[in-house]
Amino acid sequence: MPRYKLTLEYDGTPFVGWQKQDNGISVQSVLEEAVRRFSGETVKATGAGRTDAGVHALGQVAHLDLQKSWPANRVREALNYHVQPNPVTICLVELAPDDFHARLSAKRRTYRYRILNRRPPPALERSRVWHVLKALDAEAMHEAAQTLIGRHDFSTFRASLCQAKSPVKTLDRLDVARDGEEIHISAEARSFLHHQVRNMVGTLKLVGEGKWSARHVAQALAARDRRRGGPTAPAEGLYLVSVGYEQE
Amino acid sequence: MPRYKLTLEYDGTPFVGWQKQDNGISVQSVLEEAVRRFSGETVKATGAGRTDAGVHALGQVAHLDLQKSWPANRVREALNYHVQPNPVTICLVELAPDDFHARLSAKRRTYRYRILNRRPPPALERSRVWHVLKALDAEAMHEAAQTLIGRHDFSTFRASLCQAKSPVKTLDRLDVARDGEEIHISAEARSFLHHQVRNMVGTLKLVGEGKWSARHVAQALAARDRRRGGPTAPAEGLYLVSVGYEQE
Repeated sequence: MPRYKLTLEYDGTPFVGWQKQDNGISVQSVLEEAVRRFSGETVKATGAGRTDAGVHALGQVAHLDLQKSWPANRVREALNYHVQPNPVTICLVELAPDDFHARLSAKRRTYRYRILNRRPPPALERSRVWHVLKALDAEAMHEAAQTLIGRHDFSTFRASLCQAKSPVKTLDRLDVARDGEEIHISAEARSFLHHQVRNMVGTLKLVGEGKWSARHVAQALAARDRRRGGPTAPAEGLYLVSVGYEQE
Repeated sequence: MPRYKLTLEYDGTPFVGWQKQDNGISVQSVLEEAVRRFSGETVKATGAGRTDAGVHALGQVAHLDLQKSWPANRVREALNYHVQPNPVTICLVELAPDDFHARLSAKRRTYRYRILNRRPPPALERSRVWHVLKALDAEAMHEAAQTLIGRHDFSTFRASLCQAKSPVKTLDRLDVARDGEEIHISAEARSFLHHQVRNMVGTLKLVGEGKWSARHVAQALAARDRRRGGPTAPAEGLYLVSVGYEQE
């Protein structure tokens, strides 16, 4: 059975998240239902990242197997038709080797977090940004973020529901930069713990407000205790930007 | 009675446009209702540009008069509270001279038009861009756009419903540039005819597709006949970016 690699964009607002759940519609179920309408097959779509409810994707990757070897563009066009009216787009479909696994083969995940940092609430970017009224010091946030780079036990930034075997991860990049009224945080690693990016962002916000220094962030990391980290930033500002694989 | 100048952002999707109409909710009516809830007064809000249904604003300007001289920030906070849950934000409130008129005092209007130029449909930018599947040549569009710069009779790009006294306008800027998967068109003039930007964009798309040359655009302009222009680009890609006044 040919394996297909799909690159997806979605607005996370109406979904319970990537993964199928009993309490609402998921991106995975929309995709699997589109396949059923297209080829009549019941498939399992495996995603590279299990994005939470409200989290968006610009470049989520998934794989699934079909009985037949269709032209990749034919699969893309058909699935884009059948996912309607859900805000999900299949940007790219590629034939993949049989051992390609969207999650396990992934070597790099890139997330972006958007903060709208101004007093008036968002009108156009509602549910696409975290609205923070108080002026944040993006440079101080960036400096503090650098204390998190490298291989560490990230228990301080790990959700209690996290299913990862180990809390040790290697964070390759955590950049904070202002772009007009917005602050953008870019995070890159082979993989992340559950809520890790949102918990790091919630902690860096304390630095941006002047409540915490870079030293507080380093101490929180060293404590390996979720209670020592900052609050979890809301899902709506988070975007899974891309997933990288060996062959690329 | 003190006059207030308001700078507004809105998502045009749910509205019949800026102006009050019988067939649905308008930005103007949302704003006037917010004033009624705030101060109990029935006011008329005058906008700089009468954006159509579905057209967005990043910097629409309006003026209105209140009985009392409130601190400007107090007015902004109160109106932002009372416009909820409509996707309208009052970004700035300023006290203005009594003779300030949002529409008549305006010296410059800047619009942006966003085309998403790729085969897959938008998921995150749905109703925020014009989705054009066929690859467009942005450089050819920019070159053709330059034939429209200057003082001309713009009848070719004027909606039949346009209420302007004269079809003669001076177009100061019409830039087309690609930004990744998007094409952005920036238009600047003291004022525009009804649908002028959307009609120019619909015409430039013909150039981007290779169907028309810059010469065709110049001939269409010279014909001063709406039937010689390209189709009207959809409202959802258009943004009123800013309105400029003398004192600035």
